[in-house]
Amino acid sequence: MPNPTAAMLVIGDEILSGRTRDSNLHHLAGELTRHGIDLIEARVVPDRHAAIVAAVNALRQGHDHLFTSGGIGPTHDDITAEAVAAAFGLPLAIREDAFRILEAHYARSGLPFNAARQRMARIPEGAVLIENPISAAPGFSLGNVHVLAGVPAIFEAMLAGLLPRLTGGAPVLSQSYRIDRGEGEIAGPLAALAAEFADLSIGSYPFVQNGAFGAHIVVRGTDPARIDAAMARLVALFPAGG
Amino acid sequence: MPNPTAAMLVIGDEILSGRTRDSNLHHLAGELTRHGIDLIEARVVPDRHAAIVAAVNALRQGHDHLFTSGGIGPTHDDITAEAVAAAFGLPLAIREDAFRILEAHYARSGLPFNAARQRMARIPEGAVLIENPISAAPGFSLGNVHVLAGVPAIFEAMLAGLLPRLTGGAPVLSQSYRIDRGEGEIAGPLAALAAEFADLSIGSYPFVQNGAFGAHIVVRGTDPARIDAAMARLVALFPAGG
Repeated sequence: MPNPTAAMLVIGDEILSGRTRDSNLHHLAGELTRHGIDLIEARVVPDRHAAIVAAVNALRQGHDHLFTSGGIGPTHDDITAEAVAAAFGLPLAIREDAFRILEAHYARSGLPFNAARQRMARIPEGAVLIENPISAAPGFSLGNVHVLAGVPAIFEAMLAGLLPRLTGGAPVLSQSYRIDRGEGEIAGPLAALAAEFADLSIGSYPFVQNGAFGAHIVVRGTDPARIDAAMARLVALFPAGG
Repeated sequence: MPNPTAAMLVIGDEILSGRTRDSNLHHLAGELTRHGIDLIEARVVPDRHAAIVAAVNALRQGHDHLFTSGGIGPTHDDITAEAVAAAFGLPLAIREDAFRILEAHYARSGLPFNAARQRMARIPEGAVLIENPISAAPGFSLGNVHVLAGVPAIFEAMLAGLLPRLTGGAPVLSQSYRIDRGEGEIAGPLAALAAEFADLSIGSYPFVQNGAFGAHIVVRGTDPARIDAAMARLVALFPAGG
């Protein structure tokens, strides 16, 4: 049975302006690979209602899961919850359990639970809350859309709580081999190897180091014996890294 | 006049599997901001023909420019040139000027100019070459689509050659201010400020540092006097960072 598939939507002007370098995509990609969910596509959109609604609706269809990051805080530019509710055509309102979680958090920390913070208790109708062990404001799963915070430490903590709830497939395993020759010298035999092991994914990732070219060859699949066989052939083709 | 707009398409299984952390999006975003081109959307797709064709066609419409990164090397998983040609319905063939650039490069370096390397001279009909000062294999611009390498050093060098050819608008300027209070405490006055300076973009980017919450407030726009005015108001609202 093929693995479940997923897409990711990163929401935030700061990524597209170059102010912030996203790290949530890279973290999610690694976690999903280990969990046996195949990440197929990712998009980055700005903090604009129409762009978020369109991307949510495009990506939640055709994938088993959509993970979003960013835009669920208390400030005026945090509009993800509204946009996800609008994408589903569902109402968004303060929800009592989310309200109580936040109320208790701010009571403990001695900070005012003001209107901006109460805004973070607005959850689309029918969603399931995702726990936020760091700053309390919950994310939520609505259908197959999982709405997480953008701050990396919080994104990672929420994802750690969410992933065990999602059915995974076979973890994708990989081995890699460094070859200190230009890709052009290895491309022919490598293509033949990839054709022979068509059940595996064999990728070549070139690099430049101190002015010299090389490539990391990565063999991926779910059957460790097949990966071992392909790696043995690869090493025999290019002994001692080149 | 509004600035030209752009989208980016990152092509590569290695990003979606978590093996490699993309850095080209962040670099492009910063360069475009300085050049006065607004990056509006980014997507990441795997090394699959249909996915690349669909994304190229979706993104080249509705934006003044589309920049792609990855998949133009000599190995079997480098399929970007074919996919971009297919997206435009144009033939792809070895082009003489590209062939000669590569031939001279390999003659200089004493490496065989074999079939895999000759493959990198395949350019869609009607494209303009983009110089690659590092590894010679050229990128190309086809209409408003600019096809660049995925290796960051090469991507950056190709972009540096390409950008001066593209008409930019007013560079987007920004100033930022750090406030060591939770976003929930500043959200109300900040929303009022954003409404008053509706010609600027005012974003709040929260962080967690040593267990304490804070936010960087970033004011962006093209008119430095307006940014100064908004910053003065911001500092007056939250003196000494909080």
